[in-house]
Amino acid sequence: MKPLVFQSDFGTVDGAVSAMYGVAYGVDPGLVISNLTHEITPYDIWEASYRLIQTVSYWPRGTVFVSVVDPGVGSTRRSIAVETNGGHYIITPDNGTLTHVKRMCGIRAARIIDESTNRLQGSGESYTFHGRDIYAFTGARLAAGVITFEQVGPAVEVDSVIELPVVDAKLEGDSVSGTIDVLDVRFGSLWTNIPRELFAKLGVPHGGRLEISIENETRMLYKNILTYAKSFADVCVGEPLVYVNSLDCMAVAINQGSFARAYNIGTGNKWKIHIRRAPRVIYE
Amino acid sequence: MKPLVFQSDFGTVDGAVSAMYGVAYGVDPGLVISNLTHEITPYDIWEASYRLIQTVSYWPRGTVFVSVVDPGVGSTRRSIAVETNGGHYIITPDNGTLTHVKRMCGIRAARIIDESTNRLQGSGESYTFHGRDIYAFTGARLAAGVITFEQVGPAVEVDSVIELPVVDAKLEGDSVSGTIDVLDVRFGSLWTNIPRELFAKLGVPHGGRLEISIENETRMLYKNILTYAKSFADVCVGEPLVYVNSLDCMAVAINQGSFARAYNIGTGNKWKIHIRRAPRVIYE
Amino acid sequence: MKPLVFQSDFGTVDGAVSAMYGVAYGVDPGLVISNLTHEITPYDIWEASYRLIQTVSYWPRGTVFVSVVDPGVGSTRRSIAVETNGGHYIITPDNGTLTHVKRMCGIRAARIIDESTNRLQGSGESYTFHGRDIYAFTGARLAAGVITFEQVGPAVEVDSVIELPVVDAKLEGDSVSGTIDVLDVRFGSLWTNIPRELFAKLGVPHGGRLEISIENETRMLYKNILTYAKSFADVCVGEPLVYVNSLDCMAVAINQGSFARAYNIGTGNKWKIHIRRAPRVIYE
Repeated sequence: MKPLVFQSDFGTVDGAVSAMYGVAYGVDPGLVISNLTHEITPYDIWEASYRLIQTVSYWPRGTVFVSVVDPGVGSTRRSIAVETNGGHYIITPDNGTLTHVKRMCGIRAARIIDESTNRLQGSGESYTFHGRDIYAFTGARLAAGVITFEQVGPAVEVDSVIELPVVDAKLEGDSVSGTIDVLDVRFGSLWTNIPRELFAKLGVPHGGRLEISIENETRMLYKNILTYAKSFADVCVGEPLVYVNSLDCMAVAINQGSFARAYNIGTGNKWKIHIRRAPRVIYE
Repeated sequence: MKPLVFQSDFGTVDGAVSAMYGVAYGVDPGLVISNLTHEITPYDIWEASYRLIQTVSYWPRGTVFVSVVDPGVGSTRRSIAVETNGGHYIITPDNGTLTHVKRMCGIRAARIIDESTNRLQGSGESYTFHGRDIYAFTGARLAAGVITFEQVGPAVEVDSVIELPVVDAKLEGDSVSGTIDVLDVRFGSLWTNIPRELFAKLGVPHGGRLEISIENETRMLYKNILTYAKSFADVCVGEPLVYVNSLDCMAVAINQGSFARAYNIGTGNKWKIHIRRAPRVIYE
Repeated sequence: MKPLVFQSDFGTVDGAVSAMYGVAYGVDPGLVISNLTHEITPYDIWEASYRLIQTVSYWPRGTVFVSVVDPGVGSTRRSIAVETNGGHYIITPDNGTLTHVKRMCGIRAARIIDESTNRLQGSGESYTFHGRDIYAFTGARLAAGVITFEQVGPAVEVDSVIELPVVDAKLEGDSVSGTIDVLDVRFGSLWTNIPRELFAKLGVPHGGRLEISIENETRMLYKNILTYAKSFADVCVGEPLVYVNSLDCMAVAINQGSFARAYNIGTGNKWKIHIRRAPRVIYE
């Protein structure tokens, strides 16, 4: 018996998630089921991909994740199950939800779900029904050991697993630049795609000063000097800071405030951030 | 040991739901407890009834549901437990929460909760306390096998279980009409009370065109021609569609948009919807 | 194996809470984990303290609570575990989160978490990482019996556990006064710090009339005559009432409405409430 973890954009206001639980417990009442989140922005595959990478590695090997953000439900998009290099399983529509896991954890094997065997009988039709009748059902059977990973369905090339376009962070001269990938919604922090290792090449120690600039396609939204802090407690309440987040990437926040709301910052490949050692300011 | 599923309008912002869990685990630490939803609109019995019908049948036989939306707490309303024809148990104030389950699943037996035995000792007084001290407590004892269904309390006539007024969908000439029963909140879809079988009498195949009109007491809010789609992927992003929902009833949505928000659609017996085969339009 | 209950201000929109679950199941896959709430207002230690006192006593002895509202993460604030007089364990930053538990349940013993042994290996840096790598990890080990309470770390004086300032309710002549401690958010009720026993000295029976006045630092916001009701059903829909809440303190609500929103009432030591027997009004 392995843990079973659900993610979706269904919300928890109606019965869709609970129906997934019911189907899973129908497979095996001894399953241990929990939620990653069901508050993914509707249809936002990128966010689903990011929440997986934020979470998967903290779970025991063999844990089965079921992620259902599925704007293409009813189309010809594939339903797949993958095994990561870390030994976790993820079941999802093959629509880019595995972008970050594929790049950052690595995928060892991929299989198409054979719906002729791995599908609950008597399905209805709704946005959420594949989540319940195929994904939750198959995830439950895999987590409970009713089927093996091989019995999910035929193997496909790992290379064929769909990835959303990702822009890489880069070092240019004395500046690193990247994109704002996602918000830590509740605390308003910006999570960038700039790895700590790349940033480290600037040679700025904790407590050092950094010049941060943020722009989207049309304009510069922020340019200021911030402290590179070891943690929030190193700066004053209300003071902005640069820090390393739980994915070992650079992040920007306001201690006990919301950086994203303060400056109307959004996310995606068009939201660029540049970090450089702050210039010395000399008054003459 | 049977699964125990909680529903309420308590929200999860404070400790009321967790106190229900605590009481249940106090009955038996081996219980498997999960949530249907706790985001029912406060005091909205109709919505509670609808979320049950949306969910119950996906759970294993013997599952015990506890639903607490209870505007009459402290009044003389009865506390009851019922067994559905499908073999599920539901424990709830008898205030109309069982309307849809009674009509659509059928109720096999009903019993009044005998509070002299089925009540946690040392209760306080609050809106949520019956949920915790009577409903969760009794549900936990039933799910854990501490008591049988018969030991819940004295039997009452199934006919006496309270139902909210329901308007039936009907076929008139070449048009079916019904009410908008509930929203699929997160995706903004309208769920009607028109069964697929009734709609089928119009003889419109998938891909066919339908004229949809929606009105409330005071005015017409929507009248347009839509595609009857097998799934969302059959229409463009942003295009409205008619489809069959997970309750096997007709529903209206915008692919990746919110129909309800786009046209300010509400729910209830005063919100009427008419569906007919679209007229042929001939330009002369 | 004891139940493990998580509370935080992390929200459930991203993967932070699920990472805590993953770490805990990594300690022991047989753990029974649930949530108190993760919707504590960000950084609001007072609210975290209140939600604990609202919930803890309904759980079985030995239950382990992990509460992470931690504006001082990365500072020198201590990480502690306490055993209450009721036999519950709570693991939290020592920042005032235990204020109400210490005053109302009592704390039997307190220990500092020894992070040299009680910390997951390979931590990152983020607001939430202590919650995951120290608090959830240690809570899981204690709940699973991997460590005893004594093995959490060195004992400290119970007196040293930090408390936020609390104003006591008081009886003056024929009036009791206190503060509005917290809102029952979803239903808009005001929960005061006035114990039922203190109120009882006014000698007003159920059904009696009370004069309620509410003021903050700058002005009087409410002054009116209300019924002291046994439960909500004793008053009309839309009528305000005074009642005894689940903490056995006095509370004010509108039946099926929101008192807090109706009169813009806030919480904290500056929000004062006075309750007295209503004057007789004699027209001459």
